[in-house]
Amino acid sequence: MFFNKGWDPKGLHVYITGGSTGLGLALAKLLTQKGAHISIVARDQGKLDRAINELQTVRQNPEQILKAYSFSLNNAADSAAALKTVCDAHGGTAPDAVFACAGSSKPMFFVEMSEQDMTEGMTAGYWVQAWTAFAAAKHMARQKRKGKIVLVSSTLGYMSFVGWASYSPAKHALRALADTLHSELLLYGIDVHIFFPPTMETAGYETENLTKPKITKRIEEADEGLTPEQAALGMFRGVERGEAHITVDLITSLFRASTRGSAPKNNWILDAIYDSIAFIATPIWKSSVDKKVVAHRDEHRAYLEQNGFFGDK
Amino acid sequence: MFFNKGWDPKGLHVYITGGSTGLGLALAKLLTQKGAHISIVARDQGKLDRAINELQTVRQNPEQILKAYSFSLNNAADSAAALKTVCDAHGGTAPDAVFACAGSSKPMFFVEMSEQDMTEGMTAGYWVQAWTAFAAAKHMARQKRKGKIVLVSSTLGYMSFVGWASYSPAKHALRALADTLHSELLLYGIDVHIFFPPTMETAGYETENLTKPKITKRIEEADEGLTPEQAALGMFRGVERGEAHITVDLITSLFRASTRGSAPKNNWILDAIYDSIAFIATPIWKSSVDKKVVAHRDEHRAYLEQNGFFGDK
Repeated sequence: MFFNKGWDPKGLHVYITGGSTGLGLALAKLLTQKGAHISIVARDQGKLDRAINELQTVRQNPEQILKAYSFSLNNAADSAAALKTVCDAHGGTAPDAVFACAGSSKPMFFVEMSEQDMTEGMTAGYWVQAWTAFAAAKHMARQKRKGKIVLVSSTLGYMSFVGWASYSPAKHALRALADTLHSELLLYGIDVHIFFPPTMETAGYETENLTKPKITKRIEEADEGLTPEQAALGMFRGVERGEAHITVDLITSLFRASTRGSAPKNNWILDAIYDSIAFIATPIWKSSVDKKVVAHRDEHRAYLEQNGFFGDK
Repeated sequence: MFFNKGWDPKGLHVYITGGSTGLGLALAKLLTQKGAHISIVARDQGKLDRAINELQTVRQNPEQILKAYSFSLNNAADSAAALKTVCDAHGGTAPDAVFACAGSSKPMFFVEMSEQDMTEGMTAGYWVQAWTAFAAAKHMARQKRKGKIVLVSSTLGYMSFVGWASYSPAKHALRALADTLHSELLLYGIDVHIFFPPTMETAGYETENLTKPKITKRIEEADEGLTPEQAALGMFRGVERGEAHITVDLITSLFRASTRGSAPKNNWILDAIYDSIAFIATPIWKSSVDKKVVAHRDEHRAYLEQNGFFGDK
């Protein structure tokens, strides 16, 4: 451990999607402070302008190239175009690291979702990052350049419960993409990491609370949440240490250790302890959540009645 | 255990998607033999005709209603239309159980995939079942009828490796959907199960081998595979026993126990043993696979060279 200095972003070009707010912006600031060249992409030009101003105030030297571009990342063509623009400012060379931090969620009851709620959930939770990884992996492989691709899942990429039927599948899909690419991109010397943040105190969290069912809120009550800065620092440290699956809070670490599948362990002893705790604790948690859901039946039926659910067809 | 007779399909209406071939057909035959009313849906009318003839030969009594319908299930509207037609033959009543067995895969190298390979992977691995669950959950909830929804994932819904970047995310997404609905559909008394079969000797397996990279085949060498009949029987027994996550082979059971997240355990003692074995065994497996992938680098580079990968763009 002492001999491995880990990943040093100084002088490297780092591309961050969703870099204008929340986790992405916190990470962009952290890496600017560490001397990296930063390119951020997000949709809202106003937010990008404010973000780039924030980055300018923490730059370490005048050589650092700090850029912001407005792109939607919801499909393959737009994500490839964003990457191309980002690379153009660096002579067309692929970034040294890509952090796909873009994403959002809209918790709802499954039976009240429309087709669009389901497909938009997959786009906002999965494709918005998958297309960036898709473009970046091809570009890095073509240029025979090593690099890093870092995806951002969620505690809900390890487990799920009532309210998350459009989001948790997307976050599990990202985990699978990361696990596949962790294996496959060994062919090109590209490292793949994935971060599983818990609740973060961001604008996105406030938006998701607007549609979140009461029962879902009740189950998440105990969840304290991290600031985007805490989460960004934890993600960076995990990448520095070379962890395939990165978790920073205890609850998500328990789920990581008990949902490891074929993902490499971070620390054999600690992971064994986490796994043992989770073996006992998650069934207790699951059964307490099940009880809350069952106890919610009558209230839920009245709620659906009121919303006209039983009426139409 | 002795007092719980488990699930008895006799006289129940069971809707099976992908019911004309492979696992779906094997399950349809098994449940016909157990006296259920069966509705199968698949695309190919010729295969449906042959399937329904097979079912007729194993019917237990003349009252059994055995039906086959041709529908695509790739979007919400078609899947809802299929369910409606299936219910119409039973007075519009929702089925007692829905088994979503439809699905297919196309293993390839990530950097050689097109946008369409990625989105079709999600459709053929996830949406084709998710839309059926979507239509069925709404219909059951509206009619205030209890019932069962059973999804079919894969060993690749627990783990992944080179070649599966379009399929494993879809199968992980299904797992997340099942875990969410296992919690959420408690609100309506609907049971949710998900089956994780290993390789099965089906027509679908032969199709996937047409595009499967050599390195992926090399890694899967040791995988023996089940017949669709073995898999269908294992799935049925798991549903009978009320298991949330159903696995029938040792390898997938090891991954189930070590990837359990918040999924209920099937057997505390056996799952603890499986988990302990997996704690040691999966890192050894993962590291041997990583070595194979790294050893494949030169051959892979030559292969890409030959396919003109470095040339274009």
